[in-house]
Amino acid sequence: MSYFEHIPPIQLARGDDPHALAFRHYDPARLVLGKRMDEHLRLAACYWHSFVWPGTDMFGSGTFNRPWQGHGDPMKLAHLKADAAFDFFRRLGVPFYTFHDTDVAPEGDSLSEYVRNLSSMVDVLEAKQAETGLKLLWGTANLFSHPRYAAGAASNPQPEVFACAVTQVFHAMAATQRLGGANYVLWGGREGYDTLLNTDLRRERAQLGRFFQMVVEHKHRIGFKGTILIEPKPQEPTKHQYDYDTATVYGFLKEFGLENEVCVNLEANHATLAGHSFHHEVATAISLGLFGSIDANRGDPQNGWDTDQFPNSIEELTLVMYEILRHGGFTTGGFNFDTKVRRQSSDPADLFHGHIGAIDALALALERAATMIERDLLAEFKASRYAGWDGSFGKQILGGDFSLQTLAEEAVRRDLRPAHVSGKQEYLENLINRYLYR
Amino acid sequence: MSYFEHIPPIQLARGDDPHALAFRHYDPARLVLGKRMDEHLRLAACYWHSFVWPGTDMFGSGTFNRPWQGHGDPMKLAHLKADAAFDFFRRLGVPFYTFHDTDVAPEGDSLSEYVRNLSSMVDVLEAKQAETGLKLLWGTANLFSHPRYAAGAASNPQPEVFACAVTQVFHAMAATQRLGGANYVLWGGREGYDTLLNTDLRRERAQLGRFFQMVVEHKHRIGFKGTILIEPKPQEPTKHQYDYDTATVYGFLKEFGLENEVCVNLEANHATLAGHSFHHEVATAISLGLFGSIDANRGDPQNGWDTDQFPNSIEELTLVMYEILRHGGFTTGGFNFDTKVRRQSSDPADLFHGHIGAIDALALALERAATMIERDLLAEFKASRYAGWDGSFGKQILGGDFSLQTLAEEAVRRDLRPAHVSGKQEYLENLINRYLYR
Amino acid sequence: MSYFEHIPPIQLARGDDPHALAFRHYDPARLVLGKRMDEHLRLAACYWHSFVWPGTDMFGSGTFNRPWQGHGDPMKLAHLKADAAFDFFRRLGVPFYTFHDTDVAPEGDSLSEYVRNLSSMVDVLEAKQAETGLKLLWGTANLFSHPRYAAGAASNPQPEVFACAVTQVFHAMAATQRLGGANYVLWGGREGYDTLLNTDLRRERAQLGRFFQMVVEHKHRIGFKGTILIEPKPQEPTKHQYDYDTATVYGFLKEFGLENEVCVNLEANHATLAGHSFHHEVATAISLGLFGSIDANRGDPQNGWDTDQFPNSIEELTLVMYEILRHGGFTTGGFNFDTKVRRQSSDPADLFHGHIGAIDALALALERAATMIERDLLAEFKASRYAGWDGSFGKQILGGDFSLQTLAEEAVRRDLRPAHVSGKQEYLENLINRYLYR
Amino acid sequence: MSYFEHIPPIQLARGDDPHALAFRHYDPARLVLGKRMDEHLRLAACYWHSFVWPGTDMFGSGTFNRPWQGHGDPMKLAHLKADAAFDFFRRLGVPFYTFHDTDVAPEGDSLSEYVRNLSSMVDVLEAKQAETGLKLLWGTANLFSHPRYAAGAASNPQPEVFACAVTQVFHAMAATQRLGGANYVLWGGREGYDTLLNTDLRRERAQLGRFFQMVVEHKHRIGFKGTILIEPKPQEPTKHQYDYDTATVYGFLKEFGLENEVCVNLEANHATLAGHSFHHEVATAISLGLFGSIDANRGDPQNGWDTDQFPNSIEELTLVMYEILRHGGFTTGGFNFDTKVRRQSSDPADLFHGHIGAIDALALALERAATMIERDLLAEFKASRYAGWDGSFGKQILGGDFSLQTLAEEAVRRDLRPAHVSGKQEYLENLINRYLYR
Repeated sequence: MSYFEHIPPIQLARGDDPHALAFRHYDPARLVLGKRMDEHLRLAACYWHSFVWPGTDMFGSGTFNRPWQGHGDPMKLAHLKADAAFDFFRRLGVPFYTFHDTDVAPEGDSLSEYVRNLSSMVDVLEAKQAETGLKLLWGTANLFSHPRYAAGAASNPQPEVFACAVTQVFHAMAATQRLGGANYVLWGGREGYDTLLNTDLRRERAQLGRFFQMVVEHKHRIGFKGTILIEPKPQEPTKHQYDYDTATVYGFLKEFGLENEVCVNLEANHATLAGHSFHHEVATAISLGLFGSIDANRGDPQNGWDTDQFPNSIEELTLVMYEILRHGGFTTGGFNFDTKVRRQSSDPADLFHGHIGAIDALALALERAATMIERDLLAEFKASRYAGWDGSFGKQILGGDFSLQTLAEEAVRRDLRPAHVSGKQEYLENLINRYLYR
Repeated sequence: MSYFEHIPPIQLARGDDPHALAFRHYDPARLVLGKRMDEHLRLAACYWHSFVWPGTDMFGSGTFNRPWQGHGDPMKLAHLKADAAFDFFRRLGVPFYTFHDTDVAPEGDSLSEYVRNLSSMVDVLEAKQAETGLKLLWGTANLFSHPRYAAGAASNPQPEVFACAVTQVFHAMAATQRLGGANYVLWGGREGYDTLLNTDLRRERAQLGRFFQMVVEHKHRIGFKGTILIEPKPQEPTKHQYDYDTATVYGFLKEFGLENEVCVNLEANHATLAGHSFHHEVATAISLGLFGSIDANRGDPQNGWDTDQFPNSIEELTLVMYEILRHGGFTTGGFNFDTKVRRQSSDPADLFHGHIGAIDALALALERAATMIERDLLAEFKASRYAGWDGSFGKQILGGDFSLQTLAEEAVRRDLRPAHVSGKQEYLENLINRYLYR
Repeated sequence: MSYFEHIPPIQLARGDDPHALAFRHYDPARLVLGKRMDEHLRLAACYWHSFVWPGTDMFGSGTFNRPWQGHGDPMKLAHLKADAAFDFFRRLGVPFYTFHDTDVAPEGDSLSEYVRNLSSMVDVLEAKQAETGLKLLWGTANLFSHPRYAAGAASNPQPEVFACAVTQVFHAMAATQRLGGANYVLWGGREGYDTLLNTDLRRERAQLGRFFQMVVEHKHRIGFKGTILIEPKPQEPTKHQYDYDTATVYGFLKEFGLENEVCVNLEANHATLAGHSFHHEVATAISLGLFGSIDANRGDPQNGWDTDQFPNSIEELTLVMYEILRHGGFTTGGFNFDTKVRRQSSDPADLFHGHIGAIDALALALERAATMIERDLLAEFKASRYAGWDGSFGKQILGGDFSLQTLAEEAVRRDLRPAHVSGKQEYLENLINRYLYR
Repeated sequence: MSYFEHIPPIQLARGDDPHALAFRHYDPARLVLGKRMDEHLRLAACYWHSFVWPGTDMFGSGTFNRPWQGHGDPMKLAHLKADAAFDFFRRLGVPFYTFHDTDVAPEGDSLSEYVRNLSSMVDVLEAKQAETGLKLLWGTANLFSHPRYAAGAASNPQPEVFACAVTQVFHAMAATQRLGGANYVLWGGREGYDTLLNTDLRRERAQLGRFFQMVVEHKHRIGFKGTILIEPKPQEPTKHQYDYDTATVYGFLKEFGLENEVCVNLEANHATLAGHSFHHEVATAISLGLFGSIDANRGDPQNGWDTDQFPNSIEELTLVMYEILRHGGFTTGGFNFDTKVRRQSSDPADLFHGHIGAIDALALALERAATMIERDLLAEFKASRYAGWDGSFGKQILGGDFSLQTLAEEAVRRDLRPAHVSGKQEYLENLINRYLYR
């Protein structure tokens, strides 16, 4: 019997039962701005939080007791887990899923056993995909859980650890390609430092740069059509992680000539841990040409660690969705739920509640953002606010017609006395609420 | 009579009077690692916090009642202020000072009046420098206090405001050059946003890029020998400032081809507001080749705004000093005290206490860091930790001898099983305390 | 001509013009749960942010140029300011206002001049109230701006400063009583410390305790019917403020026997600066019997200082409103807008935009919270979650029938093996969004 | 063979070998202010971080491979662990240790098995204490790791869970008494909430109040001579913990009449997570009469979670030590190292490095603080700063001779114009550095 046997496939709600496991806003086939909702959102559920994590935290043991998390033959458990995961994805009705290599296959006692296990489980996943129609949004390699990665993977002081990381990435990319993955993600959870006292920043940067170059070269060699994505995070588990935020990743990519090869996979909770709003990270990535995909979740505004909660603020998500729609939407990316139920949410149904709420939140945000785009008062306001830069003086300045000296002379000659013009922040904030609450 | 009449020039303490205004560690001529202490530290005091700020905060009016802060003819007050400032610098015994254009000269009612006032006050400063032997560490333009800059200077939606900013920079650079300044600093206090709702990130980035290019072109045109420095700060007064931190500035400079033209002026309190340790920002700047100068201060670990307190943690400063010494010390940069006495510290003597404590803290840190360098156990440890990368396997990897695939194959073939090696953080932390406390 | 001449009285919007200065949700006479909206919300606008603050910040001068902020005879300017303020309150349509003594009257050069000025301006306010029908939600004394309060008011090391503070409070309470104020507020902006090195916590606590007792004794002596409110804030302008948060205030009140005499005036932005959600502070105050009134605003989630922005998150406000409605609503308290337009919002109309958005946000939140109350699924869930404590075992435990030993013995005897029951957080979060977004 | 066989007992260093495992400052018998160093410090090492935690974090598996952490019979492993722990404590040379019930004994499959296991292991501990001379600083019960406590222990929605918690506390108190423990600690790791949506604050507060009362009643019933200590922590693992900080605990104790029965066990890292300096929490606890014991560790200033690092800042510890010395030192409390090596510090020797550094840090801080006490310039400064309150006017005010009205009248009559007096913060900060660095 399936673990989720008692849960019917999730559909749009019919009545008004508050306890029903049903969508209230997400309707995959509904057209928004002329495109299906599911094509806009490209929703993915993840393997790790829902099927690997047992409900532990740093102060307590697991609360979940999922059958595939018991003791037993690792490959058997991996099959059991895959059955449960795909059963869940299917009942939930998301078109995509995501995984780390070691989520789906036991890492074994040696690299060759790892390779065999992964290969064998990729067969399983391939069959599951065929059976269910699910697609892979992205694959990735777990380069942070094994003790050998305690001091980093590519940035490790030992080249042998770098080589192990490369081995995993090679096979995880192969798996991703075979499963038709739309992207390949690199999250450098241990690429950082715990203390500067034992860290050579220059060396580790060079190692990391070479590592990314190898990945990009390999992508082209094998003809992988997906996007390579780096996922910024400022810290945790390390004290400081090198992929701190989008702006930091941009500088890194520029240094190694990769800014046209790699995009970012942005996570809401990572943004806030870095001291930025999620909106900021998305808008910044778009403005730098790095926008790739989204790990949709949220942190707790009062807690200083990665809580990976289900996104539920329509107010926040609508602004993010507006930026994405204006950008033209996702190409290979999508919204992946890098989210976990709370440790107290030990019912199997809680996995559904969490995802349903998040999916509805994105659907609502999409619909609200679409109305923002239909009559785009923000864009109108910005266009008029910066109009001077489209005039001749502005164009001359940006076009290089003035040197510092000639412009300074011109300013004095014209006796410039520009007055500050209101930024109308309150008016604009009210405008957003008009779109949100009718 | 001088405002500081009752304060004798500050010298190395003779006795042990805890109330004495005297240095206990700073001795300019003392040799440390073969170089005079004052040449290592290149100390500067600043004009603004000590001579412009009246002791206000957002909740209260000024507590200081400095004579030059009263009502009266602005140019007369500017002269009075210059008298007091140089009297202070001289009694304190620092070799350098720093200023914003509008610290030293009234901005007047028009750009041309600004130009006249500044030019006139630069004559005064020039005479004061000649008279006292003081030198200018850097000059800068205040592009954030005037209401016209409320929405930014170079990143302003109005090109006319950009032109005003350019006017100030042109004249502030001229003043800096004329006064023999060793650097010119750009702090973009309003180059950021209060809300993304009214902000076009791409436009503002392009404006800012052109602005920095104009400054660099001008520097070469006039033959200014100093360094152009950008001072990162994450936020305040804006919600988000574009020069967030060193890593962000690096990406910006790379985009506009300025990474070999511009360095950073790092402030301790800005580092911590950005979520980094001061040590991190210094080590990062050095590793990226951007290290320029230091605004030596500290924030309050519990307060989320820029408190600009006097640096007094030898524990923190020694690590910073160690990085700088290993880097080879300052070239054109130095330690500028971008620091202010607390609003409650209303005695003129408090200005001295604050600076004396900070200078002694740097002197102590220099001396402790020098012993770290003399037998550099940290460097020894790091060299052995990364030794594998100097071996043939490491060199092959970094040298490009392996592709992702060939390295993955090699790893499996060699059945690599690297074990994690202790990072020895606790041992290294103890080592630091051995250097600090004898 | 009035400063706001061109702004018509704000009313419920008729059409759909996004630029219109009109309410879209606030309709004072509309009944919600059987009570008028204006009686639920008891809205107040404040004097200080909108009529005293000139648009300065720590890095820049004023951007507003309000006519009453120029140079001139202080009492004349105070009249001009009162005209503008009441004109604004009236056009906005809020029933209440709030003020500090020194917002409405110049403090003069001596205490006796202060007393005369305040008394004279209270005559003006009284006439304005009669003329407009506006009422006073609360009055308060500014015990933080004058330089004498730099080291605190009641907690000052000088008893003479304490006496000055008492003088202001005595006259501000008299003014509040005369103007029919519904509450009197104490915000201890400087009651805290900048450094523990010069601070005697025990003394300052005793001083503060005596001060609050004097206020409460005086309230009874003069027969003031309103509530005395303390407004918690964790820091800023001080490093640490003694009224850190509601829980801290509770302990303080208990120590001085005032927990039945004083309530709290909770500010959203102060809650978040203290590391709490606004919801937490409101729920905590209610659970401790201290709930009094609200300073409705919001901070910026990424900035570490008091930004006092207009509240606009319906998601946050609805939860707060739900707690207040369940508590039975305000008695003497209300929602005061302790909010300011951004420094860039220099148009007079921006003052209206900010307040209109905030009022609509509260109206929406009230309406959404009312539907939560109508069928209170949260309360149903909680009742069932804690049902065991209403059973006999739970009642025995809380009733004192067991000692530690007898309960331990009982547990072993009954071989208790309670399993964790899901807390259903995701389900409950989705429920909230059902109420918010229909 | 013992796990630490290769580590000699730690002693005061003889030579200057930087790699030596030796104390450089801690000398137990040395007299400081007339008392032995070990009597001042009352050092304790803890069981959990060093002997229970396997080097996991939320993103990675264990790196330590301690022999007693493998698979096998739980009681055998518990013996092995006890052997290693006491061997470590003995070689380290601390006089005290601390433990949770489930650190030392397997919890088994039922409460009765728990009781048997604990009782059996207490026999072992008793023998070990006798053999080594080690003493127990405090015992405690782990009421947060077992899944049944996921929603709290005493504040759990199920009274059966409360009863289980009581069972553990009853037996852990018995163990503590039997082993001669000097204190008993209550850390409410799960006494808080993850979301207010499912939480009844009033009920949970009442449950917690009754729980503490039961503990205190039991203490008196069994004649336990030690102190009951509550350990404040603001959050983690919960979103919000009820024992937020010392001020919050004070209010709680006052409500339940326990303020003379219970003290606080202050942890440095918990202080900083609550937004306070460690110094603040210690000074506050002393000023409220709640000071009990210390969990000596530190957090990372840039990370928002509990890192439990070894304390190594002499600058911070000296201020804390100064407060404790002025208070008269510990009575039953002491410095317990609630500290863990970094996950990367996988060598057995790292456990020694961490503790040795921390012990030396406390020894140094003690010695520096003693010189502060010898000529207590801080106390002199404070006495003169508050001298006015010892004068007649101050005494009259505090003594109740004035009402609000008579004091206000007196102030006007005397035309009080107190001027702000400098708080001398910079001078005092320099003073501290004089004590620290000679």
